[in-house]
Amino acid sequence: MAAAAVANGTKKIEQTGRSKSGVISGPSNPMVTPLLTDLYQFTMAYAYWKAGKQNERAVFDLYFRKNPFGGEYTIFAGLEECIKFIAHYKLTDDEITFIRSSLPPSCEDAFYNYLRGINCSDIEIYSIPEGSVVFPKVPLMRIEGPIAVVQLLETAFINLINYASLVTTNAARHRFVVGKSKLLLEFGLRRAQGPDGGMSASRYCYMGGFDATSNVAAGNLFGIPLRGTHSHAFVSSFMSPDEIKEKSLKHHGGSSVCKDFVSLVKTWLGKLKRSRLLGGIFNETNQSELAAFTSYGLAFPGSFLALVDTYDVMRSGVPNFCAVALALNDLGYSAFGIRLDSGDLAYQSCEARKFFQTIEKEFGVPGFGKMNITASNDLNEETLDALKKQGHDVDSFGIGTHLVTCYAQPALGVVFKLVEINNQPRIKLSEEVTKVSIPCKKRCFRLYGKEGYPLVDIMTGENERPPKVGERILCRHPFIESKRAYVVPQRIEELLKCFWPGSSDKTREDLPPLKEIRKRCIEQLEQMRPDHMRRLNPTPYKVSVSGKLYDFIHFLWLNEAPVGELQ
Amino acid sequence: MAAAAVANGTKKIEQTGRSKSGVISGPSNPMVTPLLTDLYQFTMAYAYWKAGKQNERAVFDLYFRKNPFGGEYTIFAGLEECIKFIAHYKLTDDEITFIRSSLPPSCEDAFYNYLRGINCSDIEIYSIPEGSVVFPKVPLMRIEGPIAVVQLLETAFINLINYASLVTTNAARHRFVVGKSKLLLEFGLRRAQGPDGGMSASRYCYMGGFDATSNVAAGNLFGIPLRGTHSHAFVSSFMSPDEIKEKSLKHHGGSSVCKDFVSLVKTWLGKLKRSRLLGGIFNETNQSELAAFTSYGLAFPGSFLALVDTYDVMRSGVPNFCAVALALNDLGYSAFGIRLDSGDLAYQSCEARKFFQTIEKEFGVPGFGKMNITASNDLNEETLDALKKQGHDVDSFGIGTHLVTCYAQPALGVVFKLVEINNQPRIKLSEEVTKVSIPCKKRCFRLYGKEGYPLVDIMTGENERPPKVGERILCRHPFIESKRAYVVPQRIEELLKCFWPGSSDKTREDLPPLKEIRKRCIEQLEQMRPDHMRRLNPTPYKVSVSGKLYDFIHFLWLNEAPVGELQ
Repeated sequence: MAAAAVANGTKKIEQTGRSKSGVISGPSNPMVTPLLTDLYQFTMAYAYWKAGKQNERAVFDLYFRKNPFGGEYTIFAGLEECIKFIAHYKLTDDEITFIRSSLPPSCEDAFYNYLRGINCSDIEIYSIPEGSVVFPKVPLMRIEGPIAVVQLLETAFINLINYASLVTTNAARHRFVVGKSKLLLEFGLRRAQGPDGGMSASRYCYMGGFDATSNVAAGNLFGIPLRGTHSHAFVSSFMSPDEIKEKSLKHHGGSSVCKDFVSLVKTWLGKLKRSRLLGGIFNETNQSELAAFTSYGLAFPGSFLALVDTYDVMRSGVPNFCAVALALNDLGYSAFGIRLDSGDLAYQSCEARKFFQTIEKEFGVPGFGKMNITASNDLNEETLDALKKQGHDVDSFGIGTHLVTCYAQPALGVVFKLVEINNQPRIKLSEEVTKVSIPCKKRCFRLYGKEGYPLVDIMTGENERPPKVGERILCRHPFIESKRAYVVPQRIEELLKCFWPGSSDKTREDLPPLKEIRKRCIEQLEQMRPDHMRRLNPTPYKVSVSGKLYDFIHFLWLNEAPVGELQ
Repeated sequence: MAAAAVANGTKKIEQTGRSKSGVISGPSNPMVTPLLTDLYQFTMAYAYWKAGKQNERAVFDLYFRKNPFGGEYTIFAGLEECIKFIAHYKLTDDEITFIRSSLPPSCEDAFYNYLRGINCSDIEIYSIPEGSVVFPKVPLMRIEGPIAVVQLLETAFINLINYASLVTTNAARHRFVVGKSKLLLEFGLRRAQGPDGGMSASRYCYMGGFDATSNVAAGNLFGIPLRGTHSHAFVSSFMSPDEIKEKSLKHHGGSSVCKDFVSLVKTWLGKLKRSRLLGGIFNETNQSELAAFTSYGLAFPGSFLALVDTYDVMRSGVPNFCAVALALNDLGYSAFGIRLDSGDLAYQSCEARKFFQTIEKEFGVPGFGKMNITASNDLNEETLDALKKQGHDVDSFGIGTHLVTCYAQPALGVVFKLVEINNQPRIKLSEEVTKVSIPCKKRCFRLYGKEGYPLVDIMTGENERPPKVGERILCRHPFIESKRAYVVPQRIEELLKCFWPGSSDKTREDLPPLKEIRKRCIEQLEQMRPDHMRRLNPTPYKVSVSGKLYDFIHFLWLNEAPVGELQ
């Protein structure tokens, strides 16, 4: 389908269809190959091929059935990786050799020639843009093409979207709880489910509204701002300030040099101790810690940030920090702040804040009271909410385990269902109504009301007249007869856009950079009616079908379902 | 440190130390690079370097504090990936350029030359072998080396071990519930937390006792047996048997050909319907499904396995399956079995079994009653346990979401603590006793009793006389004074072995192949006393320290902890 070129170690490939940017690089994780799929996709491919059905034109919907985390919204993410995957989809000879060894020897040779020729030039992908707020049952993606090829994509697509959407949603929920003014830092790499879990977490948490990550590789690969200070081990690796050999520090922006920064720190610690307003809370601070902070200040005089809970926050960490910060201040540097990583974060942050404010007044250091306070230690949506209600003085939160593993719900149930083959609509029945699929190749629209909020998503048959602004539209629940409503939309957004035109003449939507997707995500979240977003008993957002589609679903359903016999 | 050679696209490198196999390939996931770490490892490296401390010899313990899933054991996994990581640890110029752009401009140039020269030739790693049963607080790995370098490894090590150990333990727990005789299939790729989550899940579930995976890439990369059949979409992609064009099928092992296999299937379906013993439960079966099964049988006559719940298991799926299986039987083929993917799995499996057994008798088909029944659909430890208690006729279980995301507990709290620097023991205090670290460079032993069960793990100082078989040894709880016991071990196993000798003259333990690690894991689990393993209220396994180490811990603790003042 395309001329492939290798640039900077990343395969790049020319695209079919028209678009602004011509080149799409390969998957971010080189482990994403055509073999990253379930064996049954290959056994089915063989059975389709054997039956001569492999090129029958199929339409699949990718969607999920239930919003995660007890909420009423989800953020769609992972599209870019799916497109990068299909842009380079090509089975290598080695891969085909392996597939051959995994299938029964009775499978015919010609099948492997068929596999060798497969690419995605005849696949069409229509998708909701990445970073959008989305809802259950509405297709996030519609994938059309030769049935065998589309099925070979299924597992990788679900894998790439499932966790991406889940963790983006989780990040957005964390952001919602803390509000706009706080800094949110993703610190989850070590706790993530494997290296790629860590990389994806950093990327998608940023997308969902986080400000920065500690993950250096994610900073490098995705351009996410990086943050970090030091660990407890750094503190306990020092014994006492006596071991600091190189004690000199240049004044900020000047040429004069303070020859003994260590003594300057000690002098300040003495002043703090003697201060009537401060000294009462501590007597002797820990000397390992003092040495570590002094050393760290010498290394990073312009951005000094210290972890203050190795021994005792208020009796050692905060006074030691302040001594170094005040010494730095003498040399024209402003310290950045402290990190709290254990104990009662609300209480400690308030106490530390008071300490900083007292210093600002007592020693006349403007801005010292506004020192940044970062809190970490097993934070999640619940604890953030509790902290908020309790009252705290934290400026930034570092969040790891619960965020990146989606501890509250570690999987999203994305599915991939056949809705049409050879222009024949198909339905998947189930004894559970929520598991019945909505048949037909569909279009999807979001209808907005007078106040600018989205009111309802509606799915229609592909050839129905689309809804129009100002017209009264009947929106029906897809399965429950009695649930229906008329809507007069003030604005209409078609949700599925063409991100992979295949051999059609459609224009391909560009894949926007991460920062733009993040912006879209934040804007979409702000646009939602608040009652859909609240943590407690949020109102479900309505998802509907047109009257015509409703009638057709139920005709097909009755047609396919066996009539039971009670015995 | 070594001569690097490129073989089959994977970097291979000569090792230091003596060992049987000389070459270690790079990390399985190419995303595992020296940048896969927290920014603070680099800021600390700079601060250490700036203070001239970067080469101080440090000892870190990697361990966890609590067994997952409410159990009393954990399987250690991820070691091989750690060793592969350090075997190739080398910052590239591009990586150093990125680090430079991420640190303040005030950081000195010479630091980046230092980074450029870093490798792991001076690191020593002592580890419990992968696939071992392990317990809280006992170091899984002891990492020694220049402090700045060891810290640069921390995040990747924890990342590589945390999920690996968690999901291996989860797999072992699933195996424990179903018993040895059932086949366990890992079907989680689509629900895993990203592509690498899927790959790691397949690998480590196999290690923990699963028999096979659906993940083709994992089959290829790790040599895990593959399993899979077809999806619901395959069934609904057919309309009726009339669309099957190529109807002929060769007899098994012979040259004669059945010209119309479709008719043969229909004939058998007629016989089943007319059978007094069977016909009662179904009237008309679904024709899409019949077509799909027939087609799949034509493609895989020697290993026919059908998903039977697309429409109705007993009124359509099972009779359709049996018609195809009996037709195949006429031609000398044995069908493999069915998969159930919804509804009451216990009931359905028993009903299907009865159906198969009736056919065996009524039509004289030996072995038909033993047809394989695979069950899937949101299975986990709980549901497997419930199925067992309820009674079922399932032979194989396909398990996905709950297994691979470790839904019941998606993270293990692996930590990495400094225990010694420059031969000085270090302790990390905390208000929570369980978070206090055990100082000193230690040796760890597992003591076995008369009946062959492991009785207790004991940590000693490095230079203490090791415990001896037949000698009475005092084992103390590391923190609780009153908890202590004498043990006379019948066998002693030293737990930490040298997997990376660095510049020492120790022999490097080989990294065994996955199958051997799996074997070790299964054997270790079988060796445990049953009360540690049971699901309900298991007995905690004892972890202890020697009397000497106990005394030293408490001396250091008192020394470091500030004395409180109640106000």
